[in-house]
Amino acid sequence: MKAARYYGPGDIRIDDVPEPRTRPGTVQVEVEWCGICGTDLHEYLEGPIFVPAADAPHALTGETLPITLGHEFAGVVHEVGDGIDDVHVGDRVVVEPYIICGHCDACAQGKYNVCESLGFVGLSGFGGGFSQLVVAERRWIHPLGDLGTDLGALVEPLAVAHHAVRLSGAQPNHSALVFGAGPIGLVTTAALRASGVEQIIVVEPAAARKQKAPIAGADHVIDPTTSDVVSEVRELTKGRGADVSFECAGIDAVLKSAILSTRAGGTCVNVAIWGHEASVAMNDLVFHEVNVLGSLGYANDHPATIEMIASGKVDPFQFITGRIALDDIVKNGFDELINNKEENVKILVQP
Amino acid sequence: MKAARYYGPGDIRIDDVPEPRTRPGTVQVEVEWCGICGTDLHEYLEGPIFVPAADAPHALTGETLPITLGHEFAGVVHEVGDGIDDVHVGDRVVVEPYIICGHCDACAQGKYNVCESLGFVGLSGFGGGFSQLVVAERRWIHPLGDLGTDLGALVEPLAVAHHAVRLSGAQPNHSALVFGAGPIGLVTTAALRASGVEQIIVVEPAAARKQKAPIAGADHVIDPTTSDVVSEVRELTKGRGADVSFECAGIDAVLKSAILSTRAGGTCVNVAIWGHEASVAMNDLVFHEVNVLGSLGYANDHPATIEMIASGKVDPFQFITGRIALDDIVKNGFDELINNKEENVKILVQP
Repeated sequence: MKAARYYGPGDIRIDDVPEPRTRPGTVQVEVEWCGICGTDLHEYLEGPIFVPAADAPHALTGETLPITLGHEFAGVVHEVGDGIDDVHVGDRVVVEPYIICGHCDACAQGKYNVCESLGFVGLSGFGGGFSQLVVAERRWIHPLGDLGTDLGALVEPLAVAHHAVRLSGAQPNHSALVFGAGPIGLVTTAALRASGVEQIIVVEPAAARKQKAPIAGADHVIDPTTSDVVSEVRELTKGRGADVSFECAGIDAVLKSAILSTRAGGTCVNVAIWGHEASVAMNDLVFHEVNVLGSLGYANDHPATIEMIASGKVDPFQFITGRIALDDIVKNGFDELINNKEENVKILVQP
Repeated sequence: MKAARYYGPGDIRIDDVPEPRTRPGTVQVEVEWCGICGTDLHEYLEGPIFVPAADAPHALTGETLPITLGHEFAGVVHEVGDGIDDVHVGDRVVVEPYIICGHCDACAQGKYNVCESLGFVGLSGFGGGFSQLVVAERRWIHPLGDLGTDLGALVEPLAVAHHAVRLSGAQPNHSALVFGAGPIGLVTTAALRASGVEQIIVVEPAAARKQKAPIAGADHVIDPTTSDVVSEVRELTKGRGADVSFECAGIDAVLKSAILSTRAGGTCVNVAIWGHEASVAMNDLVFHEVNVLGSLGYANDHPATIEMIASGKVDPFQFITGRIALDDIVKNGFDELINNKEENVKILVQP
């Protein structure tokens, strides 16, 4: 079968690879749509980061590059392994793309998203969504019901947002502040809107992204290049600051703004993955007793995320800015996202 | 009356100042004991920091230096203002030394310790504990019952610890990790022990302080100059890391260790006040979903702290390493604490 495999920076090839075998307790999924994630772009531009390098096989998969990419995917059940009777051939499903040890302290706590050996299908081995077939254990298979698999491919990024919003403790009477209206900022905005939060403020400098934020659910959009973010947020929140804030950029000045714009005793959730150590004025945390919380991926968030879409609280179509064939993944997918970063949100690939 | 007043770095003088008048709704306290705090030392060494400089009067007191120092004090009620009938002359009391606006968002939330105009008696004006008499509003007066006023002078630093432990969410079955066995690290250790936490680990390099930690309640003391803290903490906590950790040092490498030694999903409380921006590997927070929380002072913690001492759960005598007269405050107080930093914890001054 065909698969888009990562060999190193700037080097993704369409290879012919063996079909994965269905084993007892697993489900074989025929992928219909798979989104290209910012993480995939980082691998393409400056990796390998998550992808195991040639001399460092992943602890759980034992694989090294070349690795099949793609972890935001949904499809149709193609075959079920022995012992599986609650998922059937033809069911539409999304795959939660984790690879975990199952026995470390984090796994024992149910926080499998911070498993100490964490890996991802589509980054660490065991195939990926940019190929025709993927096999995963039953626990990672989530039925989509009547939802289309194109929307199903959006479940993964929306689950990241659902998780971050859940950790933040956001309540309906809260004001929320999202820094960045790239893909993660937009899905976070949408998840906040779906959660019923009263007021959502998005901070974003890029023109194309500023236009998308209100569609995702922003009540106000602040341009940090022309406004003083901290004072504008205070003005919009009756002098309080935001109850919860979300750093989706991974930039020192943004984190500083996020902390200073958060209400005394409030929570700032760091959703970004950082490429460097941040310079943090810890006294800003102390003098406002702000809580800075790391959020990674999702854990037990998929069912609620699917329900969020199925109930119409989020319309994921707004995030789909392209649909392409697997053969065109580099030119019309990765290169397009790099060259037209601000216009695009999510490009879906059909293997 | 006599008062130790701060004029600038290295310049504390014993002055004769007017006695403060008792007003309606206030209580006049005759100070019996007042501890010298690390904050006072910072002012002496490199201030003015909290003390309002000559050109920047405090928003609420309107005062500038010279300022009477001393905010860790207890004494006996000397006079009560009109309208006060629940505190009587002769009562032993401790004064919660806050000066707040009462109407900002933090005050409205009851988090008056992060009032946007926060000041301290003994740093921002309205007198201080290094003088014979202090007048404060009734709300800041906490009866000590049968406790001596020497122990009463320890209520303030122990309230800082009580607050930090409360914010951390520490539970009896938790393991706790305290970085630093200076005064704040030691009282935090004692407050953790009083809270019933199962296991307490203290990290401290200085020999004299390492000896004090077990007396305060440490089950294990790790010397970071001879041990790998992160791996030793993991070993002591069944591979998990500490459920809660406390950064009481304000040092980049310590904060890094604290975050890395905290259990997945656990909480790291920053108690230190920082003299610089910290370099923080935000990904360490993200990949373990650790929660970094700022803790400042105390809010509604004094009654429980007094009860913690009265019930015998903490013995504050261990922290008293000197008792001196007001006239000797510079030589036997500030200079002694600077020259014999590691041997001393708390020196009490008798005005």
